[in-house]
Amino acid sequence: MKARIHIFYKDSVFDPQGNTVAASLQRLGFNTVKDVRIGKVIDVTLEAKRIEDARIEIGKMCEKLLVNPVIESYRLESIEA
Amino acid sequence: MKARIHIFYKDSVFDPQGNTVAASLQRLGFNTVKDVRIGKVIDVTLEAKRIEDARIEIGKMCEKLLVNPVIESYRLESIEA
Repeated sequence: MKARIHIFYKDSVFDPQGNTVAASLQRLGFNTVKDVRIGKVIDVTLEAKRIEDARIEIGKMCEKLLVNPVIESYRLESIEA
Repeated sequence: MKARIHIFYKDSVFDPQGNTVAASLQRLGFNTVKDVRIGKVIDVTLEAKRIEDARIEIGKMCEKLLVNPVIESYRLESIEA
Protein backbone atom coordinates (compact mmCIF):
# COMPACT_ATOMS: atom_id res chain seq x y z
CA MET A 1 0.00 0.00 0.00
CA LYS A 2 1.04 3.56 -0.53
CA ALA A 3 0.30 6.32 1.95
CA ARG A 4 0.87 10.03 1.44
CA ILE A 5 1.34 12.26 4.48
CA HIS A 6 1.54 16.05 4.59
CA ILE A 7 3.50 17.66 7.42
CA PHE A 8 3.31 21.42 7.95
CA TYR A 9 4.40 23.77 10.66
CA LYS A 10 1.39 24.68 12.76
CA ASP A 11 -0.21 27.95 11.65
CA SER A 12 1.02 29.66 14.81
CA VAL A 13 4.63 28.69 14.09
CA PHE A 14 6.85 30.97 12.00
CA ASP A 15 7.90 29.31 8.73
CA PRO A 16 11.29 30.84 7.82
CA GLN A 17 11.72 28.82 4.62
CA GLY A 18 8.29 29.84 3.39
CA ASN A 19 8.90 33.49 4.19
CA THR A 20 12.25 33.44 2.39
CA VAL A 21 10.69 31.89 -0.70
CA ALA A 22 7.84 34.43 -0.64
CA ALA A 23 10.34 37.30 -0.49
CA SER A 24 12.42 35.76 -3.29
CA LEU A 25 9.37 35.35 -5.52
CA GLN A 26 8.39 38.97 -4.93
CA ARG A 27 11.93 40.09 -5.76
CA LEU A 28 11.71 38.12 -9.00
CA GLY A 29 8.62 40.13 -9.96
CA PHE A 30 5.84 37.85 -8.74
CA ASN A 31 4.09 40.70 -6.94
CA THR A 32 0.80 38.82 -6.64
CA VAL A 33 2.30 36.42 -4.06
CA LYS A 34 0.87 37.04 -0.60
CA ASP A 35 2.11 34.10 1.42
CA VAL A 36 4.08 30.88 1.09
CA ARG A 37 4.07 27.94 3.50
CA ILE A 38 6.39 25.01 2.94
CA GLY A 39 5.89 21.55 4.34
CA LYS A 40 6.95 17.99 3.69
CA VAL A 41 5.16 15.32 1.76
CA ILE A 42 6.12 11.77 2.66
CA ASP A 43 5.16 8.79 0.54
CA VAL A 44 5.40 5.56 2.51
CA THR A 45 5.12 2.22 0.74
CA LEU A 46 4.22 -0.48 3.24
CA GLU A 47 2.79 -3.96 3.38
CA ALA A 48 -0.62 -4.27 4.99
CA LYS A 49 -3.60 -6.52 4.44
CA ARG A 50 -6.24 -3.90 5.15
CA ILE A 51 -6.29 -0.16 4.65
CA GLU A 52 -7.35 0.26 8.28
CA ASP A 53 -4.20 -1.55 9.47
CA ALA A 54 -2.02 0.68 7.30
CA ARG A 55 -3.76 3.77 8.63
CA ILE A 56 -2.99 2.76 12.21
CA GLU A 57 0.65 1.98 11.35
CA ILE A 58 1.08 5.36 9.64
CA GLY A 59 -0.35 7.12 12.70
CA LYS A 60 2.21 5.37 14.90
CA MET A 61 5.05 6.27 12.52
CA CYS A 62 4.04 9.92 12.61
CA GLU A 63 3.90 9.96 16.40
CA LYS A 64 7.18 8.09 16.89
CA LEU A 65 9.41 9.58 14.22
CA LEU A 66 8.00 11.64 11.38
CA VAL A 67 6.25 14.51 13.13
CA ASN A 68 7.37 16.88 15.86
CA PRO A 69 4.03 17.49 17.57
CA VAL A 70 5.25 20.63 19.33
CA ILE A 71 5.59 22.62 16.12
CA GLU A 72 4.17 20.44 13.35
CA SER A 73 0.84 18.94 12.42
CA TYR A 74 0.25 16.14 9.96
CA ARG A 75 -2.51 14.88 7.77
CA LEU A 76 -2.84 11.51 6.07
CA GLU A 77 -3.70 12.72 2.58
CA SER A 78 -4.34 9.42 0.88
CA ILE A 79 -3.84 5.72 1.28
CA GLU A 80 -4.37 3.18 -1.45
CA ALA A 81 -3.70 -0.45 -2.16
CA MET B 1 -6.22 32.05 -4.49
CA LYS B 2 -4.37 29.19 -2.93
CA ALA B 3 -2.24 26.77 -4.90
CA ARG B 4 -0.63 23.60 -3.63
CA ILE B 5 2.45 22.23 -5.37
CA HIS B 6 4.22 18.92 -4.79
CA ILE B 7 7.93 18.69 -5.56
CA PHE B 8 9.67 15.32 -5.54
CA TYR B 9 13.02 14.05 -6.64
CA LYS B 10 12.62 12.31 -9.97
CA ASP B 11 12.21 8.55 -9.60
CA SER B 12 15.66 7.98 -11.06
CA VAL B 13 17.29 10.23 -8.44
CA PHE B 14 18.47 8.79 -5.12
CA ASP B 15 16.52 10.23 -2.18
CA PRO B 16 18.90 10.11 0.82
CA GLN B 17 16.41 11.64 3.27
CA GLY B 18 13.76 9.11 2.31
CA ASN B 19 16.17 6.20 2.59
CA THR B 20 17.33 7.34 6.03
CA VAL B 21 13.76 7.65 7.25
CA ALA B 22 12.89 4.20 5.86
CA ALA B 23 15.87 2.68 7.70
CA SER B 24 14.95 4.51 10.91
CA LEU B 25 11.35 3.28 10.73
CA GLN B 26 12.53 -0.29 10.21
CA ARG B 27 14.89 0.03 13.17
CA LEU B 28 11.97 1.24 15.28
CA GLY B 29 10.11 -1.98 14.46
CA PHE B 30 8.02 -0.88 11.47
CA ASN B 31 9.07 -3.91 9.44
CA THR B 32 6.26 -3.52 6.93
CA VAL B 33 7.86 -0.38 5.47
CA LYS B 34 9.24 -1.00 2.00
CA ASP B 35 10.11 2.45 0.73
CA VAL B 36 9.94 6.10 1.70
CA ARG B 37 10.18 9.10 -0.62
CA ILE B 38 10.21 12.61 0.78
CA GLY B 39 9.29 15.73 -1.13
CA LYS B 40 8.16 19.26 -0.52
CA VAL B 41 4.66 20.64 -0.49
CA ILE B 42 4.40 24.36 -1.14
CA ASP B 43 1.23 26.34 -0.50
CA VAL B 44 1.27 29.63 -2.36
CA THR B 45 -1.38 32.26 -1.64
CA LEU B 46 -1.58 34.70 -4.52
CA GLU B 47 -3.90 37.26 -6.01
CA ALA B 48 -5.37 36.39 -9.39
CA LYS B 49 -8.64 37.09 -11.10
CA ARG B 50 -8.94 33.77 -12.88
CA ILE B 51 -7.73 30.31 -11.97
CA GLU B 52 -6.10 30.04 -15.39
CA ASP B 53 -3.97 33.15 -14.66
CA ALA B 54 -2.90 31.70 -11.32
CA ARG B 55 -2.00 28.39 -12.97
CA ILE B 56 0.29 30.17 -15.44
CA GLU B 57 1.93 32.21 -12.67
CA ILE B 58 2.57 29.10 -10.59
CA GLY B 59 4.17 27.39 -13.58
CA LYS B 60 6.54 30.34 -14.00
CA MET B 61 7.40 30.35 -10.28
CA CYS B 62 8.26 26.66 -10.42
CA GLU B 63 10.46 27.14 -13.48
CA LYS B 64 12.25 30.23 -12.14
CA LEU B 65 12.74 29.40 -8.47
CA LEU B 66 10.91 26.55 -6.80
CA VAL B 67 11.96 23.51 -8.81
CA ASN B 68 15.36 22.25 -9.90
CA PRO B 69 14.37 20.56 -13.18
CA VAL B 70 17.57 18.52 -13.35
CA ILE B 71 16.66 16.38 -10.36
CA GLU B 72 13.13 17.36 -9.37
CA SER B 73 9.69 17.19 -10.88
CA TYR B 74 6.62 19.10 -9.75
CA ARG B 75 2.88 18.78 -9.90
CA LEU B 76 0.27 21.43 -9.26
CA GLU B 77 -1.94 19.46 -6.88
CA SER B 78 -4.76 21.93 -6.43
CA ILE B 79 -5.72 25.52 -6.98
CA GLU B 80 -8.77 27.18 -5.55
CA ALA B 81 -10.24 30.62 -5.10
